[in-house]
Amino acid sequence: MLVTVRGRSNHYRTVAFDAERNAVLLIEQRLLPHEFKIIPTLDFRHTAGAISDMVVRGAGAIGATAAYGLAQGARAFRGRNLQKFRKHLETVYQTLKAARPTAVDPVNALNQVCAAMNAGLTVEEQQALALAAAEEFANEDVRHCEAIGRHGARLLRNGGNVLTHCNAGWLAFVDVGSATAPMYAAQAQGKKFHVFCDETRPRSQGATLTAWELAQQGISHQIIADSAAGHLMQRGRIDLVIVGSDRTLGRTGEVANKIGTYSKAVLAARHGIPFYVAIPLSTIDWSLKSGFDIPIEERHESEVLGAWGAFQIPNSKVQRPKAKAVPHSALRAHHSTLEYVRVANPTSAALNPGFDVTPAELITGIITPAGILKPQELWARRHELGERRAAPKS
Amino acid sequence: MLVTVRGRSNHYRTVAFDAERNAVLLIEQRLLPHEFKIIPTLDFRHTAGAISDMVVRGAGAIGATAAYGLAQGARAFRGRNLQKFRKHLETVYQTLKAARPTAVDPVNALNQVCAAMNAGLTVEEQQALALAAAEEFANEDVRHCEAIGRHGARLLRNGGNVLTHCNAGWLAFVDVGSATAPMYAAQAQGKKFHVFCDETRPRSQGATLTAWELAQQGISHQIIADSAAGHLMQRGRIDLVIVGSDRTLGRTGEVANKIGTYSKAVLAARHGIPFYVAIPLSTIDWSLKSGFDIPIEERHESEVLGAWGAFQIPNSKVQRPKAKAVPHSALRAHHSTLEYVRVANPTSAALNPGFDVTPAELITGIITPAGILKPQELWARRHELGERRAAPKS
Repeated sequence: MLVTVRGRSNHYRTVAFDAERNAVLLIEQRLLPHEFKIIPTLDFRHTAGAISDMVVRGAGAIGATAAYGLAQGARAFRGRNLQKFRKHLETVYQTLKAARPTAVDPVNALNQVCAAMNAGLTVEEQQALALAAAEEFANEDVRHCEAIGRHGARLLRNGGNVLTHCNAGWLAFVDVGSATAPMYAAQAQGKKFHVFCDETRPRSQGATLTAWELAQQGISHQIIADSAAGHLMQRGRIDLVIVGSDRTLGRTGEVANKIGTYSKAVLAARHGIPFYVAIPLSTIDWSLKSGFDIPIEERHESEVLGAWGAFQIPNSKVQRPKAKAVPHSALRAHHSTLEYVRVANPTSAALNPGFDVTPAELITGIITPAGILKPQELWARRHELGERRAAPKS
Repeated sequence: MLVTVRGRSNHYRTVAFDAERNAVLLIEQRLLPHEFKIIPTLDFRHTAGAISDMVVRGAGAIGATAAYGLAQGARAFRGRNLQKFRKHLETVYQTLKAARPTAVDPVNALNQVCAAMNAGLTVEEQQALALAAAEEFANEDVRHCEAIGRHGARLLRNGGNVLTHCNAGWLAFVDVGSATAPMYAAQAQGKKFHVFCDETRPRSQGATLTAWELAQQGISHQIIADSAAGHLMQRGRIDLVIVGSDRTLGRTGEVANKIGTYSKAVLAARHGIPFYVAIPLSTIDWSLKSGFDIPIEERHESEVLGAWGAFQIPNSKVQRPKAKAVPHSALRAHHSTLEYVRVANPTSAALNPGFDVTPAELITGIITPAGILKPQELWARRHELGERRAAPKS
């Protein structure tokens, strides 16, 4: 999507590849929204480190990073010995897979690239096929997000007000995003609308990433406290909600997403406001039978007890992010240039569930690359949708 | 309530009076939760400044501070000339009234003290009556909160889990508090229960003040993100909600309170969880006919765009609040020793409604000093409740 750097707007992808330097190009997301920087990872270990250190995050984005990382590792091999090449590839594969052990997207991406390489007879052929497969993985991610945008754009009416929660934007994918895709598509159709971004405590992805994306794209928006959406709905100031999903149950239509999503769905239902979830097909879980079976990660209490930000005189235009890192390994990586302040009472503890589950009855529709479906329709159409990545319907 | 300073627990009131030094004693609330300090205000102008600078906040607490400030001003007068004394008193009255021009409690408090002084025939007699009336105002505030506690304590069951929002605790009154009163009373009865404190963005009064109060009192509690309550309700982990009120409509039973209260009421109703509002009678507005007529203050966007806190290495026990003030007059006063960090995207704006309105249909009961009432009962019992401060029913 568009990013304006030093007054010039350019198009960027979250993840790209520089074939000449054999480098993966990543937006350094830990610096956002205070600084925009593309960093090249120059070998596969560096690429794996960028995944584990959260330079790049979001299902689609880390999938593509792993795919490019495998191609990068393959292309770094010197020689023609296929056996040695295979051994080398195994190291690359395991290194990239271990970078985010619980995520499914990188593994799917690595397997897809490996499968494509099998058609090559020589090291050189396999290297070329690896890069082509990685590019295809990334391009497919973009096409799917674009398809979500095409289907969802009709939900946004001119002059409307949309609420979104957390970041399901292009920074979480290769481009375009899921929950943001209908907004970008509607903007391209010339529609004017306003977006309320829930700040999304405790990690503030709405206030930082989504707001940054919308600002870059020139879409009218305001950040609100997570508590404010109910009041705005009551006063008739929100007429559509679109969120993303971390896991969507194919059997029940339940949606696990960032903590607070469920509250917004309950409020939307009370006010008769349509509530949509935009998903790539890779988030559909066809096995679980109940949302109560989804494990809800309890994250570190320090997220709730404080906040990360840049120093600033309030209301001044001067930004003074400090370079000094917060020396806490588990958190440092996410916020390398930001400062942590302890907001809460020093002798109190916090409880920090990271996700919640929204039942199908509260979901108006699920925007997929294959069209907008009722949550209860997923299971009946499982054969069509069941492929990890179904072809988008243009 | 109890405060532990350097290992020793003592009982404190938010507002008290030192007759010997003719000083109002206030908990410096801007330093909480990071530092506990009692400051004396040594003349009425200093006392008025403490109200306007937010050393003290909360309806009951600023009412009592104004009452003591008037007695302090009266007692500082030297001489026996009643006419000069009256002129001096007028200056004291206007200075204290102007300290928080939109609040009704200080004006009521000042009028109550003035009325009591009329019974005195000499300057000396009037000075003594002023102090007695101020003490009575403060004691009455405490008795009313204690009555809320007596009535509300039965709602808390042993082993139960309570949710509260923002701070309607003893720091907002002279002692005991409104929403917290049933908790303190239940604790005194030997009941064990757990409190979830909504952090209450953007000003974080739940994470700072309520959590501090509960920690001092030794009540089991955890801070949660405002977005987490819905999930906890869904999983059966909350069985009672008690909040305070900034304005309660006597005609309709609607409650205006800190932004986010309405969302919690909607969620509680969905899950069949009782939702109670604890109020001193002074918050009842007998004139407005609809919650939509309540003006909702839009506060400064910087509250949503960032956070105030103390520097700390995450998870370390070391607190290092810095003495340097944030040089922004409107905010400095609230957070004199804290640092502000900008969390949000620097080029995005925020919308910051400070309050919302909860309709009567979502409120299980209103806990008043006169008993627990249905919100719809207020109007029928208006003659009993209509006095600014009705006598508590023991």
